[in-house]
Amino acid sequence: MGINSNRVEHFLDHETTTVTISTETMPPLELHRVCLPPHKTTFQKLRHRLSEIFFPDNPLHQFKNQTWLRKLVLGLQFFFPVFQWGSSYSLDLLRSDVISGLTIASLAIPQGISYAKLANLPPIIGLYSSFVPPLIYTILGSSRHLAVGPVSIASLVMGTMLSETVSYAEQPILYLQLAFTSTFFAGIFQASLGFLRLGFVIDFLSKATLVGFMAGAAVIVSLQQLKGLLGIVHFTTQMQIVPVLCSVFKNKNEWSWQTIVLGTIFLMFLLTTRKISMKKPKLFWISAAAPLTSVLLSTLIVFLLQSKTQGISIIGHLPKGLNPPSSNMLYFHGPYLGVAIKTGIVTGILSLTEGIAVGRTFASLKNYQVDGNKEMMAIGLMNMAGSCSSCFVTTGSFSRSAVNYNAGAQTALSNVIMASTVLVTLLFLMPLFHYTPNVILGAIIITAVIGLIDYQSAFRLWKVDKLDFLACLSSFLGVLFISVPLGLAIAVGVSVFKILLHVTRPNTMVLGNIPGTQIYQNLIRYREALRIPSFLILAVESPFFFANSTYLQERILRWICEEEERIESNTNESSMKCVILDMTAVTAIDTSGIDTICELRKMLDKRSLQFVLANPVGNVMEKLHQSNILESFGANGLYLTVGEAVADISSLWKAQP
Amino acid sequence: MGINSNRVEHFLDHETTTVTISTETMPPLELHRVCLPPHKTTFQKLRHRLSEIFFPDNPLHQFKNQTWLRKLVLGLQFFFPVFQWGSSYSLDLLRSDVISGLTIASLAIPQGISYAKLANLPPIIGLYSSFVPPLIYTILGSSRHLAVGPVSIASLVMGTMLSETVSYAEQPILYLQLAFTSTFFAGIFQASLGFLRLGFVIDFLSKATLVGFMAGAAVIVSLQQLKGLLGIVHFTTQMQIVPVLCSVFKNKNEWSWQTIVLGTIFLMFLLTTRKISMKKPKLFWISAAAPLTSVLLSTLIVFLLQSKTQGISIIGHLPKGLNPPSSNMLYFHGPYLGVAIKTGIVTGILSLTEGIAVGRTFASLKNYQVDGNKEMMAIGLMNMAGSCSSCFVTTGSFSRSAVNYNAGAQTALSNVIMASTVLVTLLFLMPLFHYTPNVILGAIIITAVIGLIDYQSAFRLWKVDKLDFLACLSSFLGVLFISVPLGLAIAVGVSVFKILLHVTRPNTMVLGNIPGTQIYQNLIRYREALRIPSFLILAVESPFFFANSTYLQERILRWICEEEERIESNTNESSMKCVILDMTAVTAIDTSGIDTICELRKMLDKRSLQFVLANPVGNVMEKLHQSNILESFGANGLYLTVGEAVADISSLWKAQP
Repeated sequence: MGINSNRVEHFLDHETTTVTISTETMPPLELHRVCLPPHKTTFQKLRHRLSEIFFPDNPLHQFKNQTWLRKLVLGLQFFFPVFQWGSSYSLDLLRSDVISGLTIASLAIPQGISYAKLANLPPIIGLYSSFVPPLIYTILGSSRHLAVGPVSIASLVMGTMLSETVSYAEQPILYLQLAFTSTFFAGIFQASLGFLRLGFVIDFLSKATLVGFMAGAAVIVSLQQLKGLLGIVHFTTQMQIVPVLCSVFKNKNEWSWQTIVLGTIFLMFLLTTRKISMKKPKLFWISAAAPLTSVLLSTLIVFLLQSKTQGISIIGHLPKGLNPPSSNMLYFHGPYLGVAIKTGIVTGILSLTEGIAVGRTFASLKNYQVDGNKEMMAIGLMNMAGSCSSCFVTTGSFSRSAVNYNAGAQTALSNVIMASTVLVTLLFLMPLFHYTPNVILGAIIITAVIGLIDYQSAFRLWKVDKLDFLACLSSFLGVLFISVPLGLAIAVGVSVFKILLHVTRPNTMVLGNIPGTQIYQNLIRYREALRIPSFLILAVESPFFFANSTYLQERILRWICEEEERIESNTNESSMKCVILDMTAVTAIDTSGIDTICELRKMLDKRSLQFVLANPVGNVMEKLHQSNILESFGANGLYLTVGEAVADISSLWKAQP
Repeated sequence: MGINSNRVEHFLDHETTTVTISTETMPPLELHRVCLPPHKTTFQKLRHRLSEIFFPDNPLHQFKNQTWLRKLVLGLQFFFPVFQWGSSYSLDLLRSDVISGLTIASLAIPQGISYAKLANLPPIIGLYSSFVPPLIYTILGSSRHLAVGPVSIASLVMGTMLSETVSYAEQPILYLQLAFTSTFFAGIFQASLGFLRLGFVIDFLSKATLVGFMAGAAVIVSLQQLKGLLGIVHFTTQMQIVPVLCSVFKNKNEWSWQTIVLGTIFLMFLLTTRKISMKKPKLFWISAAAPLTSVLLSTLIVFLLQSKTQGISIIGHLPKGLNPPSSNMLYFHGPYLGVAIKTGIVTGILSLTEGIAVGRTFASLKNYQVDGNKEMMAIGLMNMAGSCSSCFVTTGSFSRSAVNYNAGAQTALSNVIMASTVLVTLLFLMPLFHYTPNVILGAIIITAVIGLIDYQSAFRLWKVDKLDFLACLSSFLGVLFISVPLGLAIAVGVSVFKILLHVTRPNTMVLGNIPGTQIYQNLIRYREALRIPSFLILAVESPFFFANSTYLQERILRWICEEEERIESNTNESSMKCVILDMTAVTAIDTSGIDTICELRKMLDKRSLQFVLANPVGNVMEKLHQSNILESFGANGLYLTVGEAVADISSLWKAQP
C-alpha cells in the first residue's frame, strides 16, 4: 500500500536494523469504508439547502440564547444599524465626520448637478438627490464610509433608456414622471432583492463584466460631454459611439471657441488635480476641492465677462427651496410603464452593484462586515423615499466614498453633514449657480468617469483568464456599439456560458502514484508520478451532469482505448485489468450521470475490465446509494482512496492468480 | 506525518521488535512540491481547448500513419458507413435483415399513415416519409438497428406549431409547403449541428427533461385521438389540455357509437398485444404485427358493413405511385417563414434527440459505437432530401428500432427492405386503404405513445434527485398547459438553473484526519475523523467563480467564526492558528475567485491566522501563478496535501515556539 519505505528505514535506523519493505509484498491492511452522509429527511435537506441559499451568513445567529429585551435591542440594531454605532457615538467621532462630511459636500454639489445633466434632468434634481437619500441611508445603512448620492453610471443609463422613448426637451413633465417612476421601481427592485435575500443575483455581474461595462460607459459618457465642451446645440439623443461621433462632426458650425477654451482650461485643471491626488493619496483634498473651485471660478469668469461670453451656455435660473414632494408624479399606468420598469430594473441592478462593491471595499479596508442583503434594503428604501421627494436614482458613489474614507469619516453621520450642507445650498445659495457654464459640468463628468477606464484590470484579465477577458470585451463593445442593457445582457450571457462550458467539457486526466507516498496525481503535471501496472486511474474534474455525461462517457472510453494502444506498443507491459475512477473532484451527480456510470460499468465489464470508484463525495455517495447502482459494483467496487483500491485489488489478484 | 503506526508495527513483528511511532514526534519528511502544468502557449491552450470542445472523440485518430490509399478508403468509410459494413456483407446477414425489414415494414405502414395524421398531413405523406429517408440513412448512418421513419413526438410538434398559424383544412397547399419547409430547416439545422460538431447542444435536453416532455406529449397526443375515437368532427386545433378536453365534452352530440365501439375493441386488442410483448420479449412479433392486422381487419369490417357504418369516417382515396418531387414547394420568403424556421428547429432538435438516443441505446446493447456528430449529419441530410421528395420530418423511431433489434436486424440494410416493402405498397396496394377507418389510426397512435409515459423513471428521479424531478415536472406541466416549445424551454431553463445553483451555492465543509492515515475527510460524514488542534481544515466543492466568490468568502469566514466560538466554549482546547483550504475539488478559478482568495488571506492575516492552500488542481495552480498571488502566501502557503501541510506547519511551530 505504498508506505514510504525511505521513511520507515529512517525510523528503523534508531534500532540499527534496516528493513526494506517492498510495496508488492505488503498485505492490504485496514481498508476504510466509504461512509454515507448522516441520514436526513427530504424536508431536512430542503431546509438545509434553502438556508444555504438564502441565509449563508446566518443572520439570526446573534439572537440565539438571549433574553427578550436583548433580542428586541438586537433586532432594532439589526434593522437600524444607526442604533448600533449611535449608542457609542462621541465628540471625537463627530469632529472626523464633520470634516469628511464637508469635504464630500464640496464634491457632491458640483457632481450632483453634473450627473443630473447626464440623466437629462434639471440640475436641481441632482441636489435634491444629494439631500434626502443620504439621510435615510444614515439610519438604515451598514457601511460607515459610503457617500450616498447620484452616480455617473446609473445616471447615464437612466438618461439613455428614457431618452430613447421620451425627449426631455419636448415632454419635460412626462420625462420627470418617468425618471421618478424608474427610481421608484429601482428602489422596489433593490429592496425586494434584499428582503427576499436574493442578493446573489448581482454576483452574476462579475468583476470582468463590470470592468468592460464601466469602461464602455465611461467612453460613451465622455463622448457625450463633447456636446457641452464644444458648445454644440443640436446633438443626437442616441448613445452608441457611431451616432455620437457623427453628431460631433456634422455640427462643426455650432462649435463655440469661447466654450472650447474655457472647457479645455478647466478640464486640464481638473485632470491635473486628479493626477496629483492619485500620486499622493494624502493630497486627496486637492482633487476633492477642485470641482467646486472650478464651478466657482468659471461662474465668476462668466459673470464678469458676461458681454464677451455670449456663446457659452449657462445653467440659468435654479429654484430655491427644499425637495418638493413628487409622489403624485409617479406613473403607474399608460404606454410608458414598461420603459419605466425596465429602466428601474437596469439602473437598480447597476446602482446596487456599485453601492455594494464600494461598501465592501471600504469595509474590508477597515475590517468590518457589510451585510449585502441589508445594504440592498437600505439602498432600495432610500430610492423609494427619494422617488417621492423629487430625487432620481442614488447609491454609494465610488469617488466620493474614497474621499470620505480618506478624509477620515468614522460613521455614516458624514452623510448627514453632507446633506445639511446641501440643505444650506438649496435654501440660500442657489442663485450663485445661475451663471455656471454647462461646459464645466462636462469637464467634471469627464474627470469623474475617466477613472472608470481600468485598462490595467483588463490587461490582468487577459493575462490570467482569457474567457474573463472575453466577457469584459464583449460588455465593453456591447455598450459602445449596441446599447447599455444589451451590452450587459451579452456580458452576463458570456459569464454564464463560461460556467456551462466548464461543466460541459470538464478536465479528465490519468493519475499516477508519486513513489513512496499514497499521493496520486496527474501524470502530465507531475513528472515523478508513475503508472501502476495493470491499472488505469482516471480523474474527472467536474460534477457528473446531463450536460457532460455523454462527453465523459466518450472521453473515458477514449482514455481506455489510448491506454490499451500504449500497452500494445509496449510489449513488456502487463495488460490493463482495472480502471479506477477517482471521484474526489466530482462534486455532484444527477440521474444522467448515474446512468452514465452504470453504462460505463457494463461496457468495461464486456471488455473484462474491473471498474472501481474511489472517494465519492457526500452527496454523490448518497445518490449512488439511493439509485442502488452500488450493488452492481460488488464488494470491490468502491474504496475510500485510490491507494487503498490499488493495494486491495492487487492483493486480491495475487491471492487468486 | 501520520504513517499508519499499526502497519509499521505489523511489519516489525517479523523482526520481533515493536516500535510505536507517535505521529506527534515524527519529523516532517520529504515535502512534495506543487507543480505547475507543463507550459503551453496561449495558442496551444486554445487548440487543446477547442479540440476538447469539438473533437472529444478524436475522429482523425484512425487516419494517423496510414498510406494515402488507405486514408482514402478510410475517408470513404468515415463519410459513408455503408462501405464499412457493405464490404463484408454476407447472405446470412441478408436473411436476418430481410426478416427484420419485413417486420418493421408491417409496423411502419400503419404508423406512417397515423403519424402523418398526427401532423395534420395527408396519410400518404407518412408512407412517402417511410420510403426515401430510410434509403438515405442506410448509406450515411452509423447505427445498425435504427429503423427510420416518422415518429410521434416530432409529428405532433410539427402539427401543433403549424396548425397554430395555418389550418390544413383551409389552406392545404400552404400547410404542405410549410411542412416541407420545416422539414428542410430541421434537416439543415441537424446537419449543421453535426458538421459544426455542436452535437453537445442536444445534451442540454437532459433525460429528466425528456421524461417529462414525452409524458406530457403522450398525454396530449392521446387526448387529441379522442377526436378520432369518438368520431367528433369539429375539434379544436389547440394542443393544451384544457381546450382539448373542452372540445371533447362540448361536442357530445357528434359522438358516434359505431366509431366508439370499433375504436374501443381495437384499442383493447392493441393494448393487449403490447402487454403480451412487454411481458415476453420473445413474442415481440405479436405487438409488431398487431397494427397491420388491426388495419386490415377494420378495413375489412368497414368494407363489408358499408351500409351500417355510415358514421365511421374513413381515410378515403389515396393516390398510387412514388413520392412526387416537392422541392418546388419549399417556401423561403413571405410571412410564414419564421414559423417554418421555428418549427424546423424545434422538431429538428426533438427528432435528433430521439434518433441519437435510440441509436446509442442499441449500440451499447451490441457494444459498438455510434458517432453522435456523424449521426446528426446523416439524419439532417436525410431530412433535407426528404423535404424535396414529399416527406415530412423523420428520425429513428424507438418502437420500430426495438422491433428491428428484436427481429434480429444485423445492418442498416433492414431499412432498405422496409423501404422496398413501402415501395410495393405505394405502387400497388394503396386502394386497400380506402376503407380504413380513421379511428384505427387513433388507436394505433395511442398504443404507440402510451409507452412514453414512463412513471417509473419519474419516480426514480424523485427518489434520487429532487431537482431533476422538478425539471421533469416542469417540462410535463409546461407541455400540458402552455405549449410544446415553451414547455421545453422552461425545462432546459430549470436544468441550466440547476447547474448554476450548484456553482452559486457550493458545499463547504470542515475536514478531520482519520486516525492512523493521511486521509482527511468531512467531519460530519466520517465519525472517526478527528479535528487537528490549532488547525481548521476547510474544503470547497466547486469551482471558485464570480458567481460564488462572495458566498464562499462569507461562508469561509462563518466557518472560522463558528470554530472560534467552539474553541472558546471548550476551554481546554488550544486556539486556532492556521486555516488550511483543501482545493482538491476546486476544479477551476477565475479572476473573481483569485481576488477572493487574496482578500481572505488579508482578512485572516489581520486576525493573525495563517492561511494555507492545499493541492490546487492544474489550471487553478496556473492561474494562481499567473496572477502572482502565490508570492503573498510565502514559503509555507502551499502544500501538495493537507497531511503535508499539517505536518510541516506544526513542526515549524515546534521549532519556533
